[in-house]
Amino acid sequence: MPDSVRILGVDPGLRRMGWGVIDVAGPRLSWVAHGVISPDVDAELARRLAELSTGIGKIVEEYKPTVAAVEETFVNVNPRSTLLLGQARGAALAALASRGLAVSEFAARKIKQSLVGTGAADKDQIAFMIKRLLPKAGNVTADAADALAAAVCCAHHMGPELSMKLRVVNG
Amino acid sequence: MPDSVRILGVDPGLRRMGWGVIDVAGPRLSWVAHGVISPDVDAELARRLAELSTGIGKIVEEYKPTVAAVEETFVNVNPRSTLLLGQARGAALAALASRGLAVSEFAARKIKQSLVGTGAADKDQIAFMIKRLLPKAGNVTADAADALAAAVCCAHHMGPELSMKLRVVNG
Repeated sequence: MPDSVRILGVDPGLRRMGWGVIDVAGPRLSWVAHGVISPDVDAELARRLAELSTGIGKIVEEYKPTVAAVEETFVNVNPRSTLLLGQARGAALAALASRGLAVSEFAARKIKQSLVGTGAADKDQIAFMIKRLLPKAGNVTADAADALAAAVCCAHHMGPELSMKLRVVNG
Repeated sequence: MPDSVRILGVDPGLRRMGWGVIDVAGPRLSWVAHGVISPDVDAELARRLAELSTGIGKIVEEYKPTVAAVEETFVNVNPRSTLLLGQARGAALAALASRGLAVSEFAARKIKQSLVGTGAADKDQIAFMIKRLLPKAGNVTADAADALAAAVCCAHHMGPELSMKLRVVNG
């Protein structure tokens, strides 16, 4: 696809890390792939984080995205959960950026607003809009839908800077 | 050094990640190297995490440790700090485990107890004991001292399982 940007969206989580890849050409979005990385729950923390990191690495190698989009993490009321999510997020962000990808972070409200028009949208509304915007995606689990939603939000927020990068990428 | 285990201790942090390598042969400890990885503070989060991850990777390649030791993170009263530290920790743990290293985690109290004899030891006492136990280390900054302390604690807690691994490693 000429003059297109490929965006990898990631929804970080220690038990399930959703990911989704879309192509963007002007106003046109098209689905490429999505999935969920689920590390072995019985493995020790470091091993699980390594599985997430390696999994992200394989996706970057296979789909060669131009940029990555990740939802900003809200700080959980449970500090233990915040720490666990932070670790999963750190493994993912390092895996993306160490492969040279520019990583954009978007607040959850902004992602919802970008898709549904309101920052207070629920999971079902997100899933519904993902189906409408990316019909070829078929059935998408909640984690992958959140990842695709981050990618779509990134597409909507692409400024002149990214477009310029795009022109350079495509020669 | 025959029948020795090489331990890489890591003290995770987003601004400064301390690291220290020691060799352990029976009751004998010897210093190998230490340092601090300081990512560019002006870079975006994902880039800083990638610098930490890549830095850890280079240390593993250069010193070829057998195991890694990391202090367990306490949950900070400030959830924002917990999230930032969690992300640095996740990048480090994933970098270690994805290179095949077994990663042991030790509570801060256990590390202090192992070095100073009391779980309530302060930074100065840790630095003093690191100087006594590893005289060749010379002047060590606080971050690197904490990393070496984790490695020393790991050496003190090596059970038969690790000794067996050691014999396998050394043929």
